[in-house]
Amino acid sequence: MPAYSTNMRIKFPILALVLEVIMIILFSVFAVYDDGKGHDHDSSNSSHHAEPKDPMNLYPMFQDVHVMIFIGFGFLMTFLKRYGFSSVGVNLLLAAFGLQWGLLTQGFCHLTDGKIKISIFKMINADFSTATVLISFGAVLGKTSPVQLLIMTVLEIGIFAINEHLVALFEATDVGASMIIHAFGAYFGLAVARVLYRPGLKNGHENDGSVYHSDMFAMIGTVFLWMFWPSFNSAIVDPGFSQMTAVINTYLSLAACVLSAYAVSSLVEHKGKLDMVHIQNATLAGGVAVGTCANMDIGPFGAMLIGFVAGIISTLGFKYLSPILASKLGIQDTCGVHNLHGMPGILGGLAGIVAVALGKIEGKASMQAAALASSLGFALVGGTITGFIMKLPFLAQPPDQNCFDDSIYWEVPEEAEEHEESLTAEHYKSKAEV
Amino acid sequence: MPAYSTNMRIKFPILALVLEVIMIILFSVFAVYDDGKGHDHDSSNSSHHAEPKDPMNLYPMFQDVHVMIFIGFGFLMTFLKRYGFSSVGVNLLLAAFGLQWGLLTQGFCHLTDGKIKISIFKMINADFSTATVLISFGAVLGKTSPVQLLIMTVLEIGIFAINEHLVALFEATDVGASMIIHAFGAYFGLAVARVLYRPGLKNGHENDGSVYHSDMFAMIGTVFLWMFWPSFNSAIVDPGFSQMTAVINTYLSLAACVLSAYAVSSLVEHKGKLDMVHIQNATLAGGVAVGTCANMDIGPFGAMLIGFVAGIISTLGFKYLSPILASKLGIQDTCGVHNLHGMPGILGGLAGIVAVALGKIEGKASMQAAALASSLGFALVGGTITGFIMKLPFLAQPPDQNCFDDSIYWEVPEEAEEHEESLTAEHYKSKAEV
Amino acid sequence: MPAYSTNMRIKFPILALVLEVIMIILFSVFAVYDDGKGHDHDSSNSSHHAEPKDPMNLYPMFQDVHVMIFIGFGFLMTFLKRYGFSSVGVNLLLAAFGLQWGLLTQGFCHLTDGKIKISIFKMINADFSTATVLISFGAVLGKTSPVQLLIMTVLEIGIFAINEHLVALFEATDVGASMIIHAFGAYFGLAVARVLYRPGLKNGHENDGSVYHSDMFAMIGTVFLWMFWPSFNSAIVDPGFSQMTAVINTYLSLAACVLSAYAVSSLVEHKGKLDMVHIQNATLAGGVAVGTCANMDIGPFGAMLIGFVAGIISTLGFKYLSPILASKLGIQDTCGVHNLHGMPGILGGLAGIVAVALGKIEGKASMQAAALASSLGFALVGGTITGFIMKLPFLAQPPDQNCFDDSIYWEVPEEAEEHEESLTAEHYKSKAEV
Repeated sequence: MPAYSTNMRIKFPILALVLEVIMIILFSVFAVYDDGKGHDHDSSNSSHHAEPKDPMNLYPMFQDVHVMIFIGFGFLMTFLKRYGFSSVGVNLLLAAFGLQWGLLTQGFCHLTDGKIKISIFKMINADFSTATVLISFGAVLGKTSPVQLLIMTVLEIGIFAINEHLVALFEATDVGASMIIHAFGAYFGLAVARVLYRPGLKNGHENDGSVYHSDMFAMIGTVFLWMFWPSFNSAIVDPGFSQMTAVINTYLSLAACVLSAYAVSSLVEHKGKLDMVHIQNATLAGGVAVGTCANMDIGPFGAMLIGFVAGIISTLGFKYLSPILASKLGIQDTCGVHNLHGMPGILGGLAGIVAVALGKIEGKASMQAAALASSLGFALVGGTITGFIMKLPFLAQPPDQNCFDDSIYWEVPEEAEEHEESLTAEHYKSKAEV
Repeated sequence: MPAYSTNMRIKFPILALVLEVIMIILFSVFAVYDDGKGHDHDSSNSSHHAEPKDPMNLYPMFQDVHVMIFIGFGFLMTFLKRYGFSSVGVNLLLAAFGLQWGLLTQGFCHLTDGKIKISIFKMINADFSTATVLISFGAVLGKTSPVQLLIMTVLEIGIFAINEHLVALFEATDVGASMIIHAFGAYFGLAVARVLYRPGLKNGHENDGSVYHSDMFAMIGTVFLWMFWPSFNSAIVDPGFSQMTAVINTYLSLAACVLSAYAVSSLVEHKGKLDMVHIQNATLAGGVAVGTCANMDIGPFGAMLIGFVAGIISTLGFKYLSPILASKLGIQDTCGVHNLHGMPGILGGLAGIVAVALGKIEGKASMQAAALASSLGFALVGGTITGFIMKLPFLAQPPDQNCFDDSIYWEVPEEAEEHEESLTAEHYKSKAEV
Repeated sequence: MPAYSTNMRIKFPILALVLEVIMIILFSVFAVYDDGKGHDHDSSNSSHHAEPKDPMNLYPMFQDVHVMIFIGFGFLMTFLKRYGFSSVGVNLLLAAFGLQWGLLTQGFCHLTDGKIKISIFKMINADFSTATVLISFGAVLGKTSPVQLLIMTVLEIGIFAINEHLVALFEATDVGASMIIHAFGAYFGLAVARVLYRPGLKNGHENDGSVYHSDMFAMIGTVFLWMFWPSFNSAIVDPGFSQMTAVINTYLSLAACVLSAYAVSSLVEHKGKLDMVHIQNATLAGGVAVGTCANMDIGPFGAMLIGFVAGIISTLGFKYLSPILASKLGIQDTCGVHNLHGMPGILGGLAGIVAVALGKIEGKASMQAAALASSLGFALVGGTITGFIMKLPFLAQPPDQNCFDDSIYWEVPEEAEEHEESLTAEHYKSKAEV
């Protein structure tokens, strides 16, 4: 690996510019504004719901989701002490590209007269497609270059669109996307992480941790995700009482999840102290796990039960499972996406199967199971293939010692050095005075 | 106090899990989704207004209030240099539990066929009920354990619901909740703080202060509270022009308040400098003080006048009154909630009495006065009783020397120590070189 | 300059209080709540669109714009290492005053029966008027006192209202305000900066730069601006499909702009690294540049093309043009507003001329050109006059050595000093132990 340069000067600009030019060309051929005539999304899972008449009705929902994608995911990952620029900066890059590519790939499945009619509804789905990439990004955070990540974005959103289309054909329901976004994104990322396994980081890395202020920045991400998750799970639900049900279920699941995550965090930690990693992540597992069932008549207490269990599973995963995945399976999952999105996503899929079997919504339990299996299958196979492509040696992957460090891809202000210098100067001065 | 352990390992998890299990059981018995049939909240102060037909109409308002509760209150309290995890983290814990408990306690006053019908309107009121707790939290910030604070949440929201119900029976108006939330929460917290008085902190504590970055984090809270306060004061107002009036009054009161708070801060400080404590807090007093009158026809300039006065009173309170409360009355008010919520809340209540007397809205001035008296009475008596319960010796209350320090209840990254070590190493190295 | 005091104790409080009292008096004479009867804004550029019937319809849009003004602009400017209090704090002060003054100045142009009828629509326009001041603030950030800046706010919003009224008379279109806000605000600020040129800062200033955490705070501003820019450009557009078009165009322009800004940043920087200055600013140029055309039928790809070009121009401007402006023209543009608002604003105006000429919307290309020329003319002349007024010697302007430093106008926690002291103590202790 040291033989290859991590200098991005040529490869990154060219890749970014070429991708954007391709986007502009494809948009010029395929994309038009939605004129409200004809509904082109009546077969997808997310879209057997009628779109509201006023073209701007969904705009506040869209903006909530938008905040989750750009502030929520972006700042959640800033917990690393020296990787905040990359976390929030590369998050912006990948999502800005991903939403364009997501509009196209999802649009190709639902062409109207050969055109993709862009609407607020489509923009929400485009944001959703980027969420899968940002989840996977969490698994490989700190160990990949922007070049590698742009390539992952291209591939993952393509595979996501295929799986989403297939799940829609199954007539399975997954309004909050526990399966098609969260489980898919998590296992895709874990498969990539497995392929990119770094034995050199087996004993950790000094920068793979937080400092006080970086944990505070991460809480900005956590809290925005937590607050707006009801919008994520209800954005594409039928307007009216169904949508309200999705909001209430998500809101209550998240509230219950906070209590169980805090309780278990204290229970498993040294001297009963709370652990920021759990608080930042496991408090959100309730939003993931209630996703598939969000619009179902599971009762407020049913939603709370799902959130309660998700908070426990997720916290225990961070404490006990992540170290095993790293040491036994060679899966180094930087942000613990397996605990926040993977297991809770599967829990959500299973809850959906049970809820459909119990008649909480019209549907077939077998089709729900097929949707879960399909999402996991596409994620693992797609992620593995993507991982091997990302391993190609000219993609500016950082060497082990430069992992988790912004300064390899960013101009970073020299504060630490300056500080030490000034203190050393102070030291000499005080010595002289002595 | 040193005889009792601050180890939360058993007591905190058990309390949190038991509370959540009780919530789930009560929700399974009482809570259903609102189906839009029958209005169950036609007697409360906050709810003699018709709820809009579309069940999602209030959702954007709800989300604004939600941001105020979780980001606004949470980050406003992060100004302390070593207490950011607790500020934003315990804020999340208390609010997540409080909203469930608030849904129940408020719902018990308005059962429909023995059930609580959850709607967006009810969720807004549940968020409101948590606001009282978060205000009181500000008064005892840094000096209480999560165990104590969960118990305070249980008691305070119960007492809040009783007072709110009583104020509704008076047919008093308080749409922006100057009295029933702000004054109530502040004096409740001050009563608790009085009972928990710590003579050992009479001369301050080295961690009871800010650093540069912690003040910046606090400004995130301030600005989100400031921006969304019009939503807080108008969320449960009749839709249409009444709601618009509440928005405009709050918006203008806050704008005027900024100017007076900045002016007075500069006037009373050393060399005319601005003080972050005033800017973070007193700029919000206009939102508190205009609450009761928000939906009344007081005229735009009337709202500005209220805000202008509130900004002055609040800033002067921080500068001159808080030190007296601490030294003479034994009330150590960490965040100065008396200045932000207490006095401006009373000002709001008084303004409401005057405005009703002047016929700015239908109502009786005497009932407004009764509402104010009731809110203060319940707060002081309820807070005192709650304080004595919180003083029970097995609730993991921190000893004086560990106040204002996250590390007693949180795993905190060891940056400070590491930094010193590395600098000491640097020092030896440079000595060796010399 | 050293002869004049920077002590604000008398001049700042008096100015702020007098301005606010004048506001309250003018509001008491002129301002009433909008009652929905009669449309008073049918001649301005921003207001030949019918206002929606429900008086609260625009409220979510207003709140998005509000977040951009107070969080977006406020935090974007916190990138300086020791100027965060001023950035976010003075931003709040200027915007809180500016929105009151903007309501009046814009209202005077559209009186109804001698009154200004305040509505959500008017509040959006008032926020817009403050945006011009906050853009100009960016040009002189760190080199001006709050006293000077309040005076600038008074003058700039007055001149803005005149130019806006004139552009409306031209029947030119500029819904996203590329010309009347962005180009105007930028060139106004640059003209002020030219007059306030400081030869003493020719070789830079040690505090005129960022540290790691200040760059992170700035990203909060960047991302909120980026996310909500579609609301900025569509807030006052006709409801329905026109508004949706403005949203989609802005959203796509911003997405394309991210890719080109990142690419060019890497291309021009040392070893292909990304530069935070570019990421924080140039990624937003797409929102500025698509403003004038936002509601036009330019096609999704047309919007992307505008954003793509804007990202390139803006990044190149930061890299190559800003140093020249400083060294050759004596324009020290702290935040680089010329690159984010100036050039992209002109690009937006030019794109508007072309789009109107191509018939993308009804209008006359010549009137668009007149609007651009008027905006630039008023900005340069108005900014120059304002600059000379701001140069009056008793306005507490900071001396060169105290530029870019909060401590001249703010009580700043003494962390740096304390830290050094404790380390020096540590040093002596370790010496003693040796």
